Amino acid sequence: METVSDWASHGGRQIVCRHGSEATGGEMTFAVFLPPAAKTEPCPVLWYLSGLTCTHANVMEKGEYRRAAAEAGVIVVCPDTSPRGDAADDPAYDLGQGAGFYLDATQAPWAGRYNMKRYVTEELPALVGAEFPADMDRQGIFGHSMGGHGALTLALSLRGRFRSVSAFAPIVAPSLVPWGEKAFGAYLGPERAAWRRHDAVALIEDGARVDEILVDQGEADNFLERELRPELLEAACRDAGIALTLRRQPGYDHSYYFISTFMADHVRFHAERLTK
Amino acid sequence: METVSDWASHGGRQIVCRHGSEATGGEMTFAVFLPPAAKTEPCPVLWYLSGLTCTHANVMEKGEYRRAAAEAGVIVVCPDTSPRGDAADDPAYDLGQGAGFYLDATQAPWAGRYNMKRYVTEELPALVGAEFPADMDRQGIFGHSMGGHGALTLALSLRGRFRSVSAFAPIVAPSLVPWGEKAFGAYLGPERAAWRRHDAVALIEDGARVDEILVDQGEADNFLERELRPELLEAACRDAGIALTLRRQPGYDHSYYFISTFMADHVRFHAERLTK
Repeated sequence: METVSDWASHGGRQIVCRHGSEATGGEMTFAVFLPPAAKTEPCPVLWYLSGLTCTHANVMEKGEYRRAAAEAGVIVVCPDTSPRGDAADDPAYDLGQGAGFYLDATQAPWAGRYNMKRYVTEELPALVGAEFPADMDRQGIFGHSMGGHGALTLALSLRGRFRSVSAFAPIVAPSLVPWGEKAFGAYLGPERAAWRRHDAVALIEDGARVDEILVDQGEADNFLERELRPELLEAACRDAGIALTLRRQPGYDHSYYFISTFMADHVRFHAERLTK
Repeated sequence: METVSDWASHGGRQIVCRHGSEATGGEMTFAVFLPPAAKTEPCPVLWYLSGLTCTHANVMEKGEYRRAAAEAGVIVVCPDTSPRGDAADDPAYDLGQGAGFYLDATQAPWAGRYNMKRYVTEELPALVGAEFPADMDRQGIFGHSMGGHGALTLALSLRGRFRSVSAFAPIVAPSLVPWGEKAFGAYLGPERAAWRRHDAVALIEDGARVDEILVDQGEADNFLERELRPELLEAACRDAGIALTLRRQPGYDHSYYFISTFMADHVRFHAERLTK
């Protein structure tokens, strides 16, 4: 693992690392923020999964998570959203590089390198646990849009791994919306039964559970009705007895100006569950 | 004036505007954050001047000023750092576009369009006062590096205009350091007497005054000894009886990870002086 950057910030350190990845067959870059408390003790780890087109850098630069994470004593890890370099790609913004959808692809040309589920749940946690003062028994996960989908599906399918899960404007039912149908068709093939293991609403319908979920959703989000459809998560959680707090935020769109507004709330939500 | 973007954020609005500028002879873009309080009453205005290579967007995306400004009820205006488009330019990052140094150039090819002092102290305030619920009797100013130089020199040379002034890692004595010698030589010509009106330390030596100044300076800043030299400001303020609070911050560099760490302190420093 190579340190690309290491900035003092908010009393802690904002670090960018690069490493050779077996899961994705190439070099991967991620960001990790160490709060001041990490100087003296292992700290819980909060995973932030980003949305379409993002790298590790978008939320690192624009997410405004450091003050709250420093105050709470939480490490924040921000992975990339897909393999890079010579990995297969597609000209569209919503397929290929920048659009890994946090699953392990089974279809050509994506299979073999588009293993973002394995990357963010196995390979990168092992690296983070080995390289940083991280208490891997206390992990939370959140994300935005495609990354909200990732946070929800990984928390639901890896029961017990994450003590807390939240999302900003998540894709909650990818099997039913254009972004997900396109990506899942490409990565997983036409057999829709395989899609359900990567669809938060379907996972809940099929019996997967978490205790509670916090979601913020802007009401002026251009993708709300076509791609995000939080009402489907609401219905699934109601039927399953999952405590969903869905906050519809008037006037807010899909941007980092929305994410950063509610970032501190989310970091504190996780910290309360990770540090008690 | 044209609205380029208008995002809900932290209960207020982060807006980007474009307008034809007489002072700089072309189109200029600036950012303005309206706090929630601006919905119902005129709010004080805090000017943020950016450093070399920046546009309005750097601090807007990475400066993390919105939460504190929303809480304090302060409008934050972030101008660009030079004329753009077909204005004269130079291949170096520290001259020409992105490097206006907040003065009115007198030398070819810069004279005529490189009028950033006139732009940020006359033209843009008139526009902001006309277009937004801004109380122009309550203005503060701050900035970073070249923009810290701008904040200090404009506050010192326009006595009474700004109720508060602060800076992150400012160029305090441009006449004596490479960045300033290069830019002032190009924009103002070889006659160093003319430089003193755009040099914070020289202005203080020549009798200009403000009541107090807050400066944060990273001790791991690569530009500290060669370009920034806060000890010169310290000496000038001591001799002049200006209350300078110079905070040397161990480990911090020249980046937005430094700026954003101390941004809320600065916004509150200004707000206390602008809202009482």
